[in-house]
Amino acid sequence: MKKQIAVILGDGIGPEVTQQSIKILDAIAKQYNHEFTYEYCLMGADAIDKTGSPLPDETLTTCLASDAILFGAIGHPKYDNDPTAKVRPEQGLLKLRKSLQLFANIRPVNTYTSLQHLSPLKAKNLEGVDFIIYRELTGGIYFGKKETSADGQSATDDCTYSIPEIERIAHLAFQHAQKRRKKLTLVDKANVLETSRLWRKVVQDLSSQYADVAVDYMFVDNAAMQIIVNPKQFDVVLTENMFGDIISDEASVISGSLGLLPSASVGSSVALFEPIHGSYPQAAGKDIANPIGSILSAAMLLDHFGLTVEADLVRSGVEWTLQHGFVSKDIDPINCYSTSAIGDLIRDFTENKL
Amino acid sequence: MKKQIAVILGDGIGPEVTQQSIKILDAIAKQYNHEFTYEYCLMGADAIDKTGSPLPDETLTTCLASDAILFGAIGHPKYDNDPTAKVRPEQGLLKLRKSLQLFANIRPVNTYTSLQHLSPLKAKNLEGVDFIIYRELTGGIYFGKKETSADGQSATDDCTYSIPEIERIAHLAFQHAQKRRKKLTLVDKANVLETSRLWRKVVQDLSSQYADVAVDYMFVDNAAMQIIVNPKQFDVVLTENMFGDIISDEASVISGSLGLLPSASVGSSVALFEPIHGSYPQAAGKDIANPIGSILSAAMLLDHFGLTVEADLVRSGVEWTLQHGFVSKDIDPINCYSTSAIGDLIRDFTENKL
Ligand SMILES: [Mg+2]
Ligand SMILES: [Mg+2]
Repeated sequence: MKKQIAVILGDGIGPEVTQQSIKILDAIAKQYNHEFTYEYCLMGADAIDKTGSPLPDETLTTCLASDAILFGAIGHPKYDNDPTAKVRPEQGLLKLRKSLQLFANIRPVNTYTSLQHLSPLKAKNLEGVDFIIYRELTGGIYFGKKETSADGQSATDDCTYSIPEIERIAHLAFQHAQKRRKKLTLVDKANVLETSRLWRKVVQDLSSQYADVAVDYMFVDNAAMQIIVNPKQFDVVLTENMFGDIISDEASVISGSLGLLPSASVGSSVALFEPIHGSYPQAAGKDIANPIGSILSAAMLLDHFGLTVEADLVRSGVEWTLQHGFVSKDIDPINCYSTSAIGDLIRDFTENKL
Repeated sequence: MKKQIAVILGDGIGPEVTQQSIKILDAIAKQYNHEFTYEYCLMGADAIDKTGSPLPDETLTTCLASDAILFGAIGHPKYDNDPTAKVRPEQGLLKLRKSLQLFANIRPVNTYTSLQHLSPLKAKNLEGVDFIIYRELTGGIYFGKKETSADGQSATDDCTYSIPEIERIAHLAFQHAQKRRKKLTLVDKANVLETSRLWRKVVQDLSSQYADVAVDYMFVDNAAMQIIVNPKQFDVVLTENMFGDIISDEASVISGSLGLLPSASVGSSVALFEPIHGSYPQAAGKDIANPIGSILSAAMLLDHFGLTVEADLVRSGVEWTLQHGFVSKDIDPINCYSTSAIGDLIRDFTENKL
């Protein structure tokens, strides 16, 4: 298989974690006779420093011409601490998401036996946790009309959803459920919200096309409890933008470390793969960051190409390092391994050299 | 002190748990020379059966003429399972809240050492957890304009807040913080929502009137994580209606049993006190329900009357029963005590008879 991957190293620890993923993708390509070519693009603070823009036109063009985007992280304190800054690194990512119409954010949530001590939840609540959240990313109240009244006495935010907006992400979630444990949970507030009732209607209507998938409906306040009390009940969770923001962040702490978690953002054309963590500038260049979030994002990229055997091999490599205690400083501050050492081990695992 | 309390026993386990609270309030009144009179009112399925209405006019009149309302629970499956039912028990509560303008829902969250094994969180995350959530209850997206487009292709919910709506609950939260650890956390999404920016502005403006209270701002997605990872950081949490619905339900599972949790709803006139649990009809009349949620609500009612010594005595009684294993079936299905036995023990504790 021949694929072009746009690589955005970005800021802070972005470059060093992404380089581990590329090392592993290269090893996979060699072993399975694929040809991955990488087009490096600028974005974020790095792009502002070099071009003045957080998302240069060239980057957008290259991304649109690629089969997937592997993304590190962006953001730098010199922009955060300057309220007068006209351009900000984060604008690059928002513009990229919008330009690529990345309407679905996908976050797997699972746990590792060797890391149970890091989770705020009891071990018995962690067993068998393996679900994936589909969050709508371009609609709802975050993108609705915003107004402050002329007298400044009140403010309004609109939440709007249309049937096509719901259908396109619902299809993706149903299709993913078919490949998993065949259960879809729609999280909404249909007892109160009109938009939630539309979500429920659309999902109900589509469910006849996916007769093998059991559909479940859960109010968002209850979901916020169930994610803690009984997370293993979930398989594929589908929800609108703001509910997804809240419950996917809540769910992210279950595994015990944000450094482990990958994500994908999928749209009408090219998809983007990135760890959920930020640019963590304090750790930049020190070879101490956790590369697992990026490496598991690369595994999702392989899945997206249909290369599930290869993706599973990468995930097995990650599990092997975690089980054997080859972990970064965020997981174990005493017995820790460097970013690049962990990347090397996972690469060696995929090459069967361990 | 002379006070009239409107009592709504309601449906399911409502009557039997509320009766424990009254038993204890009576003991407190006797010991501290107060005079509490109770006006029993109909509401919910019970009221529909007897009068045809879920909230008879008489109930509303009595409530408005009382100093506080002690509320059990409402709801019955015969209405839930009948989609054609024109009147529903829940309508009574919604109408009562609206008529009394109960704009602030107050929920304490704390933990008991003897119940740590019931919590989904690890014991180390439970130590020192003691916070209280102020949720705005009559505004925001739940009460905003709702629309489906003429062609049925899209739906909209409006979220609106005005400065006075925010100010009245913010004052209550600030005042409560002054009596506690003097920290207020506003939970919002001010990086995205116009209404959140208004909340932030109002709280910022009011903070100068409460110079002894440290104010903290937290995005709701982060709050959903922090409630699990580090709940002891919170003292008073203030938030809008929907965010409050989600995070207060999330926080409610920390203690290990929903049966333990009280709440108060405060408005322009008379306040209402109720356990957060429902009517649990399967357990009705069996003397097995957990009365602690109701009893701690009665303690909040005493606080509301300014009777803090009395309220603390009731809470000490609750702690004593939990510590000594005098718990209901939901807490320990093997060694359990009846609803009325637990009520008796707490009453005896307040009378210093144990
Ligand atoms: Mg978030
Ligand atoms: Mg709720």
